[in-house]
Amino acid sequence: MSNARRIIVINPNSTPEVTSAMRDALDDRFLCLDIPEGPATIVTDRDVAEAGPRVAALAAAQEAPLAVIVACFSDPGVAETRAAVPCPVIGIQEAGVAAALALAPRFGIIALSELPIARHRVRLERMGMLERLADEVGLSGVSAYAAGHDPAVYDELLAAGRRLIASGAGAIVLGCGGFGPRRAVLQAALGVPIVDPVLAAAGVALSVTGGQR
Amino acid sequence: MSNARRIIVINPNSTPEVTSAMRDALDDRFLCLDIPEGPATIVTDRDVAEAGPRVAALAAAQEAPLAVIVACFSDPGVAETRAAVPCPVIGIQEAGVAAALALAPRFGIIALSELPIARHRVRLERMGMLERLADEVGLSGVSAYAAGHDPAVYDELLAAGRRLIASGAGAIVLGCGGFGPRRAVLQAALGVPIVDPVLAAAGVALSVTGGQR
Repeated sequence: MSNARRIIVINPNSTPEVTSAMRDALDDRFLCLDIPEGPATIVTDRDVAEAGPRVAALAAAQEAPLAVIVACFSDPGVAETRAAVPCPVIGIQEAGVAAALALAPRFGIIALSELPIARHRVRLERMGMLERLADEVGLSGVSAYAAGHDPAVYDELLAAGRRLIASGAGAIVLGCGGFGPRRAVLQAALGVPIVDPVLAAAGVALSVTGGQR
Repeated sequence: MSNARRIIVINPNSTPEVTSAMRDALDDRFLCLDIPEGPATIVTDRDVAEAGPRVAALAAAQEAPLAVIVACFSDPGVAETRAAVPCPVIGIQEAGVAAALALAPRFGIIALSELPIARHRVRLERMGMLERLADEVGLSGVSAYAAGHDPAVYDELLAAGRRLIASGAGAIVLGCGGFGPRRAVLQAALGVPIVDPVLAAAGVALSVTGGQR
């Protein structure tokens, strides 16, 4: 696969275990990269603002990617990256929420903390998707790494998921690129579709680059 | 794969070539079925109303599907099917439009004729997605089979796509499950992402049933 054109997945944080988990969830049609000069977790508005140009620059440095996925739930640099490369560019917040819209009338989001919820809402409103949000719940302030790997976070996730279902969510979007390893077990426990936004973006990317086989 | 649980793709029309084209685009994680008592193409509101219960009944008759895709762009029977089976149920209109929302600020749709446009708009408004529609253009009244197979229809598709791009569409959704064979060549000709809604729904289904590998 080394000479084939690939779908580039950019994790804008600097935690290699988060990037590895994405790599484990995808096959060799995808090339997963992180940004060593980024923070361990994208948390503040400043983190998002600083990540944007780094994402666009890393995307522009790739040789003829088939598509680019921006694998942070604040979608840093999606517009700049679209301006910088000629291929499809997909942010995981937009893709994750879009998948949820195709799965249920109303959806919920689980964020790493309360902090990004206001920022997510601004983006959801701009996307025209706020109306179908049942609710967004923040965890206690966990890292992108802990999101997918810490057993204590799993208990928080279960409680948050139950709250969202009680609020009318028929599908739940995991609001960080690091939650992937928890998706399947959470879906089995909660009984509603749980969307890993990285997989959702991968689905969109495959559908416009060469299909599902 | 015969004993594995699969994602069921239901083509509500009775044209086996359309179902075959879907089968060709997907791998053996998917089982594609059509409805022999359906019309050759779903055209009228009555066709849609009659297809709904047939889709729900066929879905309910499958043994433990992983997910169900309703592969007609009027999404017949999606709500009824969700009530009838415990797995994720995905309509290709919702999934196709959702994928487009993750690809560009504004999208367009190409329909088989002018006739279904009003019906699509009602559904888009209910989905909260009408605001981001640049425009929808109807072809001259072609069948689901001709959509993917007739060279004359390809010229119409090109012209419709150019109109939509001029209207501000940054991504275009093909408004029938039969357009699949034309997606890649159209994307190469028009230079914007072209969404085959069957592939988009397949991407959503894979993301909530076992991933992209």
